Amino acid sequence: MRICVLGGDGYCGWATALYLSRRGHTVSIVDNFARRQWDHELGVQTLTPIQPLFERVRAWRDLTGHEIEVFAGDVTDHEFLASTIETLRPDAVVHFAEQRAAPYSMIDRQHAVFTQVNNVVGTLNLLFAIREIVPDCHLVKLGTMGEYGTPNIDIEEGYIRIEHNGRSDVLPFPKQPGSFYHLSKVHDSHNIMFACKIWGLRATDLNQGVVYGTVTDEVSLDEVLINRFDYDDVFGTVLNRFCIQAAIGHPLTVYGLGGQTRGFLDIRDTVRCIELACLNPAAPGECRVFNQFTEQFSVLELATMVQAEAAKFGLRAQIEHLPTPRVEAQEHYYNARHSKLIDLGLRPHCLSDSLLDSLMNIAVKYRERVDVGAFLPQVNWKNARNERRPSSAAAALAMSKGVV
Amino acid sequence: MRICVLGGDGYCGWATALYLSRRGHTVSIVDNFARRQWDHELGVQTLTPIQPLFERVRAWRDLTGHEIEVFAGDVTDHEFLASTIETLRPDAVVHFAEQRAAPYSMIDRQHAVFTQVNNVVGTLNLLFAIREIVPDCHLVKLGTMGEYGTPNIDIEEGYIRIEHNGRSDVLPFPKQPGSFYHLSKVHDSHNIMFACKIWGLRATDLNQGVVYGTVTDEVSLDEVLINRFDYDDVFGTVLNRFCIQAAIGHPLTVYGLGGQTRGFLDIRDTVRCIELACLNPAAPGECRVFNQFTEQFSVLELATMVQAEAAKFGLRAQIEHLPTPRVEAQEHYYNARHSKLIDLGLRPHCLSDSLLDSLMNIAVKYRERVDVGAFLPQVNWKNARNERRPSSAAAALAMSKGVV
Repeated sequence: MRICVLGGDGYCGWATALYLSRRGHTVSIVDNFARRQWDHELGVQTLTPIQPLFERVRAWRDLTGHEIEVFAGDVTDHEFLASTIETLRPDAVVHFAEQRAAPYSMIDRQHAVFTQVNNVVGTLNLLFAIREIVPDCHLVKLGTMGEYGTPNIDIEEGYIRIEHNGRSDVLPFPKQPGSFYHLSKVHDSHNIMFACKIWGLRATDLNQGVVYGTVTDEVSLDEVLINRFDYDDVFGTVLNRFCIQAAIGHPLTVYGLGGQTRGFLDIRDTVRCIELACLNPAAPGECRVFNQFTEQFSVLELATMVQAEAAKFGLRAQIEHLPTPRVEAQEHYYNARHSKLIDLGLRPHCLSDSLLDSLMNIAVKYRERVDVGAFLPQVNWKNARNERRPSSAAAALAMSKGVV
Repeated sequence: MRICVLGGDGYCGWATALYLSRRGHTVSIVDNFARRQWDHELGVQTLTPIQPLFERVRAWRDLTGHEIEVFAGDVTDHEFLASTIETLRPDAVVHFAEQRAAPYSMIDRQHAVFTQVNNVVGTLNLLFAIREIVPDCHLVKLGTMGEYGTPNIDIEEGYIRIEHNGRSDVLPFPKQPGSFYHLSKVHDSHNIMFACKIWGLRATDLNQGVVYGTVTDEVSLDEVLINRFDYDDVFGTVLNRFCIQAAIGHPLTVYGLGGQTRGFLDIRDTVRCIELACLNPAAPGECRVFNQFTEQFSVLELATMVQAEAAKFGLRAQIEHLPTPRVEAQEHYYNARHSKLIDLGLRPHCLSDSLLDSLMNIAVKYRERVDVGAFLPQVNWKNARNERRPSSAAAALAMSKGVV
């Protein structure tokens, strides 16, 4: 298939582009390198030393013979996006090209507005480009499990049958997103559902859980292909951060009680889910929703698992509870359905000791690059304006106060 | 109370500002005159000869002694908005300052993106301004009944208790908006709900039905105060259009079967509902939703009522079914709750013969100003791009084809 990966220089996007390329698809990447820019802005960097995209793509060609074409530009620039889609005429567009960090969207008004405008306008542009240029193209859009929040009922895959006053209908599952970022994904979901209805587009909205891991079969071919491994308070995800904290003997920083339960998945399952969605497209007019995760854990359960794994490396990992910077339930019911991707053939990688082992190995290998200041949450949901400091300054401050 | 009316130069905004001013509140208007600009863009105008805002406000002061302060500017300009809120320190902000026409948002990509960015960013700016400057201020936000779409179950006021797999929760009512404009209001609703949750703001989200009428006690004091009366295919509302069509002997243009059922209300109830919301503010942290309409009608029922009323004026009004330009159910279940404003004291003006009579009188009085070209729908939901012509050209075209 001809597959265009928007945001293909990012964490999930890069792993996906390589996986699809190796599987024989004709892959192109569209990216504006915004993700790298945000690292500069925040004064943080990925644990792993990633290479510029042009180096990555050249190495991939040299190693495998597979060509990945790169289009540098911004999906909020409609002229650029439309001409790219016109050139490529893809069978599927995989859309990762959004600002994806909840804390980034909560820094202040500018970051909230930027996140919503960037994400909503990029997706609107894409919907119009598909409608006008390649109406049969399948949109595979990354959403998030965070769109649902933590309702006190089972979470279904996108839609729920509601019986009410003796009548019944299948309606979009009610959304209770927990940040301006998560809200942007809810806005996208509503826009996509509508575009499918009025124009007969095909779309799959993948409500992805929290991704962990960095090694896929493709990136492990050579270190030049290495993927991001983020652990900072803004773009880092929780399990990656715990492993790095354990590797350097830093307490595992649990926000609040740690009863926050979420869906998680291995990045090797992310890439497989994307291919399954592409190979089994939605019907014309259908806006299909898959919950893309494989296991549920509470944050405290993850911390305990990392603690046990670290002990095997001779590392003693303490658990430290920080006040949560978010406004969220710290203990709650959580049970989310996730069977549609399994039905299409997904065989999940579960978070066993062996995986934790490989995560710990990465963390240990690159531990010299760790900046402990980047662990500390600096963005508080209750503030309208967070004066975020570069992590090195934050680290010095924290150390002087005996926090780390 | 000190009440700031954003969008106070528009149809509902102007009537509301005068009503609140006459009731003794200290009223200010914020407006960027975008609504007047859109008339120029579309080549249409209100049936009634409205005056510039500065003339209206001066006349109001001369007639009543009540001062309404005007702040000219755009709510998407945060610096302007924040300094205005800082100057006024209002007890309540009534937010009408959005692009409010579904067909306008469906013209093409630019209009869709403009509508969503304009509405979402204006509301985000307002939420941040309230949080930072006047956190106890009550936000009274205009939403629309169109956020709900036409589900096959009863529509509740904002939230619904869902029983599912033996568990239960009260969740936001699922939304199925029918245009990029309606979507923008759904996005706003989610953003406001979240801001109330994290910052403890007070908000009332008024999901208003289709408004009809133009005469309130205040605007009838003098013709210089006259309100808008829109009948064009983009900004016109259905009942106003039918009355004008009847007044000039033009067929009443029903889209499709006419079984589309919606909630309606008299503009005199709009202004009273706004005051009721202001006088009974939401609690801190509460995002309250009221369905603001008084009666349900199908479009065909309205046409039949206007036909009967027109006969009393000696006018013979035919009903003409045009293909609907929208993607919508033409026959459907519709039953929406609307008791919360009644509980607060609203006494509805029902669409009786006497009201239709006054509407018909306005239509007959100004019928020389009618542009029949403005009746014809030129924006089709199924097109990604509608080449809209100024109404005079459209009229000539339609006449040449025997359509009118």
